[in-house]
Order: sequence, then C-alpha cells, then structure tokens
Amino acid sequence: MIKENTYFEGNVKSLGYATENGNSTVGVMDVGEFEFNTGGPEVMTVIEGSMLVLLAGETHWQTFVSGQSYDVPGNSSFKVKVESQVSYLCQY
Amino acid sequence: MIKENTYFEGNVKSLGYATENGNSTVGVMDVGEFEFNTGGPEVMTVIEGSMLVLLAGETHWQTFVSGQSYDVPGNSSFKVKVESQVSYLCQY
Repeated sequence: MIKENTYFEGNVKSLGYATENGNSTVGVMDVGEFEFNTGGPEVMTVIEGSMLVLLAGETHWQTFVSGQSYDVPGNSSFKVKVESQVSYLCQY
Repeated sequence: MIKENTYFEGNVKSLGYATENGNSTVGVMDVGEFEFNTGGPEVMTVIEGSMLVLLAGETHWQTFVSGQSYDVPGNSSFKVKVESQVSYLCQY
C-alpha cells in the first residue's frame, strides 16, 4: 500500500512506503514556510531543488540542495522555507 | 500546486511539480509489473529500492538501484517489475 499524506492545506504532500530498513516518504513542498515535528529521528534528503532549514535550537538557516541530507532528532521540530517547489526523501 | 497522480488501481502513485528545467514527479511503485507509455523523453531515477526495467525493443531486463538512472525515449514504452516498494524520480 502506498500511503498518501497531505499537510499544510495541500502545500506539502508525500507518499509513504516501506523499505528494508524502516519507512520512508517521498514528497513535494510548495513555496512557503513550514514547521514539522518529529516523533522518531529522521533523515531528510533533498531530491530536486533546494530548501532552507532551521533545526530546533539553532539560529542559522542552512541551505540544502539536490542530493544533500540533514538529520533531525526525535521529539524535535524543524522549520523549512521553500522558494520554489522542491522534492524530498524522508527516512525514519 | 502539487499534482497527485494514481495509476494501476493505486499501485503506482506520484506527485507532480515544476522545476527550473521542466517538470518532474516523485513516485512510489508497489510490488507488481507495470507498463508505462511516454509522450516526450523521460529520465527515470531510482530514489530508494530497486526495479527491473525492459525498454521498448530490448529483450534484456536491466536492474536499477538507488541513485541509478535510465533514459526513456519519447513516444515509447517501458515495462517495470517491482519486487518490493520502490520510489523514483521522473524528469520530463
């Protein structure tokens, strides 16, 4: 089964699936600013495009582009600013 | 806008978006065998997992794994066999 997820009034959508190592989603973010909360730890990878990311407790927005990843701890949150549509892989 | 696409009775789903260079979808395929037709040329990249691919006019199935790409000509078709859920990027 492929799980469809919609967040932020349709400005972020993802498709969930199972992997050998756990669970993943591939998704797309529209232009905007979004705050996500994590349950467990996640690895986020930009598939195509770029995003600005502010991890919890940090004051500096970092830019991640196609192929780059960042780790998000469990029970945390992170903010993302998107200037043009971007696709991502989330492994958790 | 993020376009939702569903094919093969929900066994293949994708999310469509615009890029600097054209259009892309990120998607997930469930276990099964699928035949796709192309309008224009496409570049298919496996994001996570693996798929067996038979391009039109070929007799040999090729395996593509995470990070590997293949080109599909326009006005063509290709078959994909999936043994466990796989995610992909399609650039067209």
